[in-house]
Amino acid sequence: MNNNRALVLLSGGQDSTTALAWALSKFDHVEALCINYGQRHAVETECARTIARLAKVPLHFASVSGIGSGTALVDHEAEVNVDGGMDGLPSTFVPGRNAVFLSLASGLAASIDAGNVVTGVCQTDYSGYPDCRDHFVKAMTSAMGLALDRPLQIHTPLMWLTKAETVRLMLDLESETVPAIAMLAETHTCYEGKRPACGKCPACELRLAGFAEAGVTDPIDYE
Amino acid sequence: MNNNRALVLLSGGQDSTTALAWALSKFDHVEALCINYGQRHAVETECARTIARLAKVPLHFASVSGIGSGTALVDHEAEVNVDGGMDGLPSTFVPGRNAVFLSLASGLAASIDAGNVVTGVCQTDYSGYPDCRDHFVKAMTSAMGLALDRPLQIHTPLMWLTKAETVRLMLDLESETVPAIAMLAETHTCYEGKRPACGKCPACELRLAGFAEAGVTDPIDYE
Repeated sequence: MNNNRALVLLSGGQDSTTALAWALSKFDHVEALCINYGQRHAVETECARTIARLAKVPLHFASVSGIGSGTALVDHEAEVNVDGGMDGLPSTFVPGRNAVFLSLASGLAASIDAGNVVTGVCQTDYSGYPDCRDHFVKAMTSAMGLALDRPLQIHTPLMWLTKAETVRLMLDLESETVPAIAMLAETHTCYEGKRPACGKCPACELRLAGFAEAGVTDPIDYE
Repeated sequence: MNNNRALVLLSGGQDSTTALAWALSKFDHVEALCINYGQRHAVETECARTIARLAKVPLHFASVSGIGSGTALVDHEAEVNVDGGMDGLPSTFVPGRNAVFLSLASGLAASIDAGNVVTGVCQTDYSGYPDCRDHFVKAMTSAMGLALDRPLQIHTPLMWLTKAETVRLMLDLESETVPAIAMLAETHTCYEGKRPACGKCPACELRLAGFAEAGVTDPIDYE
């Protein structure tokens, strides 16, 4: 595969958008993949479209149904509760979700001759999700290289960053070719699916704390 | 997870149906997962339903779109040609398909408290598909165990069997609780999607050769 080509998993959230900006700064050719898995908020997909347009990258779509039924991110009736999931995991945990996403992305990467997959998963802030951990991603890299029988790298530029460091990385990436701040202003984080964002749900709180710690004003609107 | 519970990937084909019969003989509780990925022949899904009913196992469904566009198994206009695929791979190769399937199956297995996933992938007859190889499945087992943070086994009872040995395994599995022969009579193999099967496509030829070598008459009808 061509090592100057990359495929970025883009949800429309802050982390994946930062991963996209990072990829734009590193690779000659970047494409993005947005995966719909019945998540609550179609607004995220719209954000992904807008961000891909700003970044001038082709955006692919894939959809998956039948994963994670009964967990908060996919069940429209479930109440979001990041503390009270099954087996001590957050209820927003969809078992194996990142494995499905990375499998789909790696297969598409092979199809577009990209030797690199980029994902915004982060161990620092999300230790409750086992499939965000670095050693899972490393194991998945090995597995997908074997599945595709060709070299593949899965990059995780945010793996060890705090939310504040992720904000700073994004601002540092701003350049003539990377409209990082404009991209950041189109990201969606709110678990409640609100735009302007609610500012009160755990996801908004985490995001706002990151901007506060970075000493930067969040460019998105809050209620 | 409970080691007496298993989830079987069931396509409705001969191999996955044999894997299901094997699982019925090994585990106390078995469920099955049929994944629709836009494959040509809805007849396969109907076979999977009939086979699950015969086996008396709950059948789950998942669907994936956006994988493998342009390859023969998913593109309705592409001509099936097992020799002429891209990069020396069969044109029926969907990059990363088994990785997506095993990710979905492993996540669902966690949801139903099953410590075992069973798949009919086979290295012997399909060496053109890198994601059917034993070392890919072993790497995927490690990756999914990390993704789910719990023990998981992925079983491949057909990995080293010839088609003839797969036929004999299925017949040997026939018992009071495993209606193997009735299940086998409902399997679908034909790449052309025909029932009665065409008997001439590469998939039918491989199947018929397996039965011939095993010295057994194939229970399905041919044109």
